[in-house]
Amino acid sequence: MLEKISSPEDLKALDPGKYQELAAEIRQFLLKKVSEHGGHLASNLGVVELTMALHLALDLPEDKIVWDVGHQAYTHKLLTGRQEGFDTLREYGGLSGFPKRKESSCDCFDTGHSSTSISAGLGLVEARDRLGESYTVVSVIGDGALSGGMAYEALNNASRLKSNFIIVLNDNNMSISESTGGFSRYLSGIRLGSGYNNLKRDVRRGLSKVPGVGESLVENISQAKMALKQMVMVPGMLFENLDITYVGPIDGYNIPQMVRIFEEAKKIDRPVLIHVKTKKGKGYEQAERYPARYHGVSPFDIETGKSHTESVSPSYTEAFSRTICRLAENDETIVAVTAAMPEGTGLKRFSSRYPDRFYDVGIAEEHAVTFAAGMAAGGLRPVVAVYSTFLQRAYDQILHDVCLQKLPVVFALDRAGLVGSDGETHHGMFDLSYLGSIPGMTIFAPKNRYELRDGLKFGLSGDVPFAIRYPRGTAWAGLKEYKAPIEMGKSEVIFREKGIALLAVGSMVETALSVYEGLKEAGISATLINVRFVKPMDTALFLELLKEHSLFVTMEENVATGGFGERFSSWLGEQKLPARVLRAAIPDTFVEQGPVTLLREKLGLSAASVLERVLKAWRENCRKEDGE
Amino acid sequence: MLEKISSPEDLKALDPGKYQELAAEIRQFLLKKVSEHGGHLASNLGVVELTMALHLALDLPEDKIVWDVGHQAYTHKLLTGRQEGFDTLREYGGLSGFPKRKESSCDCFDTGHSSTSISAGLGLVEARDRLGESYTVVSVIGDGALSGGMAYEALNNASRLKSNFIIVLNDNNMSISESTGGFSRYLSGIRLGSGYNNLKRDVRRGLSKVPGVGESLVENISQAKMALKQMVMVPGMLFENLDITYVGPIDGYNIPQMVRIFEEAKKIDRPVLIHVKTKKGKGYEQAERYPARYHGVSPFDIETGKSHTESVSPSYTEAFSRTICRLAENDETIVAVTAAMPEGTGLKRFSSRYPDRFYDVGIAEEHAVTFAAGMAAGGLRPVVAVYSTFLQRAYDQILHDVCLQKLPVVFALDRAGLVGSDGETHHGMFDLSYLGSIPGMTIFAPKNRYELRDGLKFGLSGDVPFAIRYPRGTAWAGLKEYKAPIEMGKSEVIFREKGIALLAVGSMVETALSVYEGLKEAGISATLINVRFVKPMDTALFLELLKEHSLFVTMEENVATGGFGERFSSWLGEQKLPARVLRAAIPDTFVEQGPVTLLREKLGLSAASVLERVLKAWRENCRKEDGE
Repeated sequence: MLEKISSPEDLKALDPGKYQELAAEIRQFLLKKVSEHGGHLASNLGVVELTMALHLALDLPEDKIVWDVGHQAYTHKLLTGRQEGFDTLREYGGLSGFPKRKESSCDCFDTGHSSTSISAGLGLVEARDRLGESYTVVSVIGDGALSGGMAYEALNNASRLKSNFIIVLNDNNMSISESTGGFSRYLSGIRLGSGYNNLKRDVRRGLSKVPGVGESLVENISQAKMALKQMVMVPGMLFENLDITYVGPIDGYNIPQMVRIFEEAKKIDRPVLIHVKTKKGKGYEQAERYPARYHGVSPFDIETGKSHTESVSPSYTEAFSRTICRLAENDETIVAVTAAMPEGTGLKRFSSRYPDRFYDVGIAEEHAVTFAAGMAAGGLRPVVAVYSTFLQRAYDQILHDVCLQKLPVVFALDRAGLVGSDGETHHGMFDLSYLGSIPGMTIFAPKNRYELRDGLKFGLSGDVPFAIRYPRGTAWAGLKEYKAPIEMGKSEVIFREKGIALLAVGSMVETALSVYEGLKEAGISATLINVRFVKPMDTALFLELLKEHSLFVTMEENVATGGFGERFSSWLGEQKLPARVLRAAIPDTFVEQGPVTLLREKLGLSAASVLERVLKAWRENCRKEDGE
Repeated sequence: MLEKISSPEDLKALDPGKYQELAAEIRQFLLKKVSEHGGHLASNLGVVELTMALHLALDLPEDKIVWDVGHQAYTHKLLTGRQEGFDTLREYGGLSGFPKRKESSCDCFDTGHSSTSISAGLGLVEARDRLGESYTVVSVIGDGALSGGMAYEALNNASRLKSNFIIVLNDNNMSISESTGGFSRYLSGIRLGSGYNNLKRDVRRGLSKVPGVGESLVENISQAKMALKQMVMVPGMLFENLDITYVGPIDGYNIPQMVRIFEEAKKIDRPVLIHVKTKKGKGYEQAERYPARYHGVSPFDIETGKSHTESVSPSYTEAFSRTICRLAENDETIVAVTAAMPEGTGLKRFSSRYPDRFYDVGIAEEHAVTFAAGMAAGGLRPVVAVYSTFLQRAYDQILHDVCLQKLPVVFALDRAGLVGSDGETHHGMFDLSYLGSIPGMTIFAPKNRYELRDGLKFGLSGDVPFAIRYPRGTAWAGLKEYKAPIEMGKSEVIFREKGIALLAVGSMVETALSVYEGLKEAGISATLINVRFVKPMDTALFLELLKEHSLFVTMEENVATGGFGERFSSWLGEQKLPARVLRAAIPDTFVEQGPVTLLREKLGLSAASVLERVLKAWRENCRKEDGE
C-alpha cells in the first residue's frame, strides 16, 4: 500500500479502514531501512500514527509542521514523496535524517538541536498573520525537549497570541533518557492520573487546607503540599497557568480521534497544546524495551537486535567513561553532570556506580553549566559531559558563570569534530572557536585514548576551567609510547627535525603521522608536534621551532575561523622571523552528512590531501630559498 | 545609624524598632550615591527591606545569597562593610555595581547576566550537602529574570532536592520593562487576585465544567478556559506543579514578617519559593513613576530627577531608533524583536509607532532569535535588537536556526565594545569572535551614525543573516563626507597612500583618523580603511593594498582571539607577498569597569598608544628595508 502514497493527497484518499494496515507497513519499512542504514529508530516508530493524523488533518505543504529536534520526521518524509530517499538515508548526498527545507516544500523549518520548535512555529504564525495568510502551524515537541529553557520562553510568549497555533506535545514519558525533573513528574502525573472523577473530590477536599500566609508555616506547608499534589492531577494546569489552552491527554495510536481533535483545534483563535501519549519504539519489541539503546543506531539485525558493526576497539566515550569512574573512586568531590545524554557521553557507568554524584539535568545545557559553576564555587569538582555541538547552547554560561570567576569546571566534549551521518546540525566543529574566544579557558585535545585518560586526570587536578575535546567513534591507540607528562600549556614533541613542522590538534595527530610518513617517503624529514593545548598555546616551543623551521602546517578538525591555525598564524605574524603557514581546517562553511573519512577528503583534511599541499608548499619554499 | 553598621552582626544587634529608620537612611544613602556616581537605582530602592530581612535571618558569610543579575545588591554591599566603597561606585578600581567574590566573602557568586541564580544556588546546595556542610543558600530572582529559560530549567531540576534551598522571588511586577508573557500575567494574577475566600468558591464552580476529551471540543474549551482561569488564582500552583513548595505572596516591606518566614523556610527539607512583593524605585517618587528610566542612570539631580550629563549629540541607539522607524514606514514586513530592552535598544519609539509589529519577548534571548528565524522563514524581515553581551546567550540559535538556513534576520547589536562602568560582565567585546565563527554570517560595523543608518538599510534589503554592531554612547559624526555606497563585503577607502595601511573596525575608525593625523604630523603618510565588513572580508582590496603597503595595522574593540585582526593576519600569512601586521585589539582577558577612554588607554587602544606602536614598527620596517 505504501508504494501508492507519494503525496499528502494520496493518504487522504485512503479508506480510513486501511489506516492501521498502512501504519503497520510504514513501521516495517522504517524498521527495515533503519536496520540497513542506521538512524533514529525508537522516536520514529513511536509517531507513525501521530504523523498520519497530522497529515490527514492538515494540508501540506500549505500548512506547516515544525518537528522539534527533527529526528522523528521519517514518517513525515515517507508521506511526502521521499520513499526512495530511504535507500540513501543519512548517506553522503542522500536523504537527511532531519527535516530540510532544501529537500521538500513540506519541510518548513530545519531542526536538529532541541527545544526550538515552539519559537520557530510562533514566528511562522506571526508571519502568517501579518502577511494575511491563513495556513495552520503545528509545532511537534517531545516531553524531553520541553525541559529545555527556550521551549518555556516560547510557551510564555505564545500566550499573547490571539490566533491559532497548535503545539503537539508528543509525550513518550521519556526524552532520550529518563528525565527526572519536576516537569517530567508533572506530566507523568497527568498520564497516570486517576482521572476526572476522583479529581473533583480531591480538589474540594484539598482546598480547604490551603494556608494563608503568616500562620505557622512549617506545619501547614506539608499539609498544603499534599492538598496541592492532588490538584496537580487537573490535566494541563501548568499550561493553563501560562495561558495556553490545554487538551488531553489523548491516545497517540487512535488516528480518527487525533484527526478529529486536530481539526477542532484548528478553529480555536488561541494557542492550543494537545497532549498526545505515545511510546518510543512502538511495534518493535527490542526498541520498546530499550528505547535509549534504540534511539540512534548503526545498522543492526532485526531478529536479534544486534548491531552489525559491534566495534571491538573501544571508543573515546568508553575511555572517558572508565577514566572518570576511576578518578571518582579516589576523589569524593568529583561529580558528573550531563544534559539528557548519559548513554551518549558514557556517564551511564558513573551514574550506576555513583548515583548520588550524578546529575542528568534533562535537555538543559545552560542550567548544566551554571549548576556546575555553583558546585565548583561550593568546593566540588564537577565534570560536565556533553556533545560539542550541544555545548554551543551554553556559550554565555561558560563565559559568564565559569570563566569570569575562573571556576574549576571540567568540560568533556564528546563528538568534537566531524560526526558523520547526522550532518550539518551535529558536527562538533566550532568548539575550538567559541571556547577559544573566552579568556581563561583551557582547551586540551588528546591524540589517543591514553592521553584522554591523562588529560582528564590533569584537568581535574588543576584549578581552572578546563575543556577536553575528543571525537566520535573508535579511540586511536597509536603513538602509545609517546606519553610526555602533561604540563599546562605545553605541547608534546613527537619527532623533532628541521624544515617542516606539523602542528596537529587531537584527532589530527593520527593524520599528521601519515603525512609525516609520506614526507619521509619523499625524502623529506619533518617535526611532528602533538599540540595538546589549543589554549594556552605553547608559544615557547613554537618560538624555538621558528629558528629551524620555515613551513608550519596546522591541522585541526574545526572551522578555520577562530580555530587553532588562525590563532597560530596571527601569533606568528607578530614574530620577527618569517615563516609560512599552511592551515588544514574545515573551511568557513557548514558541512553536510556523510562518512567522516569521505568528508575529510572533501574538505582537504585527509592525510593524502594535506600531504599534497605540504609537498607543494615545501617545494615552493625551497625554490624561494634557492633564490628563485 | 548607618555608619555603625559595618557587618551583618551590627544589623542583628539593632533594636527591631529601628529597622524602618535604618531602611530610610539606606534609601537616602543610595539615592545620594547613585545620583552622584550613576548606577542602578530603581531595583536597589525596591529591595532595601528585603535585603535587611535576609541579613537578619541568615548568618553571612557562612550562609550564601546569590543575587540574580546582581544590580540590586547595593544594600547587601552596604550591610557587609562596603559603605566607603560607594564613593568610588562603578569607577575604575572602585566598588563594582555587581556582586564580586573578590570584593567580599559575603559575595558567594558573581552575576551580571540574567536568570543564572537558581542554577548557581542549586549547585551550592549540592556542594553543601556532599561536603557535609550546613549553611543556607538563598537565590534572589526577579520576576523578569524568571522569564529566562534557564531559570525554568533550574526550577525543574531543583524539584528533585531533598534538602533546603530557598528561592526568593522578588516580584516587582516588572522586569526592566514590562513583561507581557503568560508567566508575567500569571504572577500579576497572584498579586492582584481576590484572595483565598473567593477562590474556593470559584474553583468549585469551575471544576464541574472541565471537559472530558473527545466531546465537542470547541464549545467546551472556551467554557473550560474560563473555569481554569479562575483556578489560576490558587497562589503558586505553577511552582507546585514543578514540585517547588510555594509560600506567598508576602509584603516586601514588612521586615519582621519576612524574617519570620525566612527562618521558618530554613527548616524545610525541600526547595521553597518565597514570593515577595516589592516596588521598583520605592521611596523616590520619580523612580516609582518611571522605573525603566531609573533602572540604570547617569549622575542626576535628586530634586528634579534630571540627568547632569544630558547629552546633546545623539547616541548610536538613537540613530538606530530613528532609522528602523523610517525603514518600517515603507516596508510592512519589517518587524522588531527585543529581549526586555525596549528603552536600552531604542525600540521604544518603534513600539509606539508600530505596536503590532513589535515583540518584547522578556529576558529570553534564545527564544528571540529562533522566533525571528521563524518569522523570516515565513516571509517577514525581523530585526533583533539586543546588547552585544546578552546576545552571547543565543550563540547556538544564531548558528543553528538562523545561519544554517541562511535566513535573513538582522541583528542590531548595541553596546558592542567597551561599555564602561558596568564592567567585566557587560563589555560587548566578544561578538566579532562568536559571530565570526559562524558560516554565512555577515558582520557590519559602521564608522559613524550616518553609516549605521545606511548599513541597517543595506542589511534589511539583503537576503542573508546580517549583524550590525555599534558602541554605547554618543554616535560619532566625523568623516561625514565619506559615504561610499555600501556593497556586500566591501570596505571603504578613506585615504589611499602607500606604506602603512590602517584597517579600522567601526568605533575604531575615529581612533584611526587620529592615528592617521599623528602619522602625518610625523611626516608619514598612510592609507586609512574603514573595514565596514568584518565578515566577509574585502580580500580583493587587501590584495591590492598588499602591493604597496608593508605594514598593516588592524584596529578593533573586540578580543584579539577570533577577532578581525586575527582573521586578517592569518589570511595575510597565506599570501605570497610578505607584510607585517600590528594588531590593536583587547587582549585575551576580561576587562574591569571604568571610563571607556581610560580602559582604552590601559588596553593599548587609545590613539596615542596605537600611534606609538605604529611609529615604532614603521621605523623598524624602514630600517629593515634600508638593509639593516
